[in-house]
Parts: sequence; structure tokens; C-alpha cells
Amino acid sequence: MHIHEFQEMMHSLYFKRDSERGVNGTYNWLVDEIAELGEELKKGEDREATEKEFADVIAWLASLANIIGIDHEKAAINKYNYKCLKCQQTPCKCTF
Amino acid sequence: MHIHEFQEMMHSLYFKRDSERGVNGTYNWLVDEIAELGEELKKGEDREATEKEFADVIAWLASLANIIGIDHEKAAINKYNYKCLKCQQTPCKCTF
Repeated sequence: MHIHEFQEMMHSLYFKRDSERGVNGTYNWLVDEIAELGEELKKGEDREATEKEFADVIAWLASLANIIGIDHEKAAINKYNYKCLKCQQTPCKCTF
Repeated sequence: MHIHEFQEMMHSLYFKRDSERGVNGTYNWLVDEIAELGEELKKGEDREATEKEFADVIAWLASLANIIGIDHEKAAINKYNYKCLKCQQTPCKCTF
């Protein structure tokens, strides 16, 4: 599934609620999901639970992008496109 | 670009460095990127800068998934797949 398709799916499911909640509320949910992902990683016991937390983070990120009207796929490819941002090589050969 | 392709691209670019940095270090970077996204959203002035922060978050998320060996696209679709998780409808019609 394309990043853009995933974002569109989230739009069709949740845009009304997301837009009512607004940028701040949705960003705060995203922060909570990042914390939950961190807890699962720290425990390191339950692969399925960790996968669900990864799913939640990308889902809330898509919701946030939908409220602001940003195309997450375009934004991602504009910045990361098969070359290291600094050394311009694949794989990255930065020496720092 | 598929979520999986984006993750593969990040793997080809940065996996060596990501795996050396490890789960904790990479998670901490992701948290920093979430904070930077929050700062841009609070300012609300610079659309291009905000798009770059969205790009960074999904990039670090992909790096983290690569270290753990999780397929982010599969994880996302397993949980979010054209139906609300709670009410099972599209769009979501939850009344809470």
C-alpha cells in the first residue's frame, strides 16, 4: 500500500473526528503513541504488540497530515529519495 | 511509493549506521523528530519545514522498524484496513 493510499484510507475513516479534534489534540495523541511504542520496545517481549504500536504511530501521523493537508508520501520522497541527504551516496558513506 | 518500499530505501541507505546505533538510540532520535514536528506545528508558519519534519518522522520510524525487523506496511495494514477498529464501519461511526 502506498503511503498516500494509507493516508487516504485514514482520511475516509477518521477525517471528521480528526478535524474536530484539531492539530494540538491529534499531535498529543501521536506523542502518546510514540510513548507506547517506546514502552513495548523497552519490554521487548511481544512482537505483535510492538507491530500494533508501529501501526498506531503511522496512523496518527497520517491523521495529523490529513488535518494540515500535507501529502505525507510527497513530503517523504521530496526529502528521502535513494541518496543520503548529506553525502549523496547509496548507501550513506558519511564519516561522522 | 509503498510503505514497504520506503522502508527498504531507508534500509539500503542507513541500515548499517542504524543497526550500530541500536534500538534505544534510534528511538531517542525518533522522539527528537516528533518534538521538532511539534515545534513546527506550533509555529505554523513554514509549510515546507513542516513537510520536512513529517518526512523525518516516517524516516526514523522506518529505521527503527528495520533494526527490529518489522515490516511496517504489513503491521499498518494488519491493524488499519478500511474499517474502524471499534465500530467496524467506514467512515467510523463511533459515538464516544
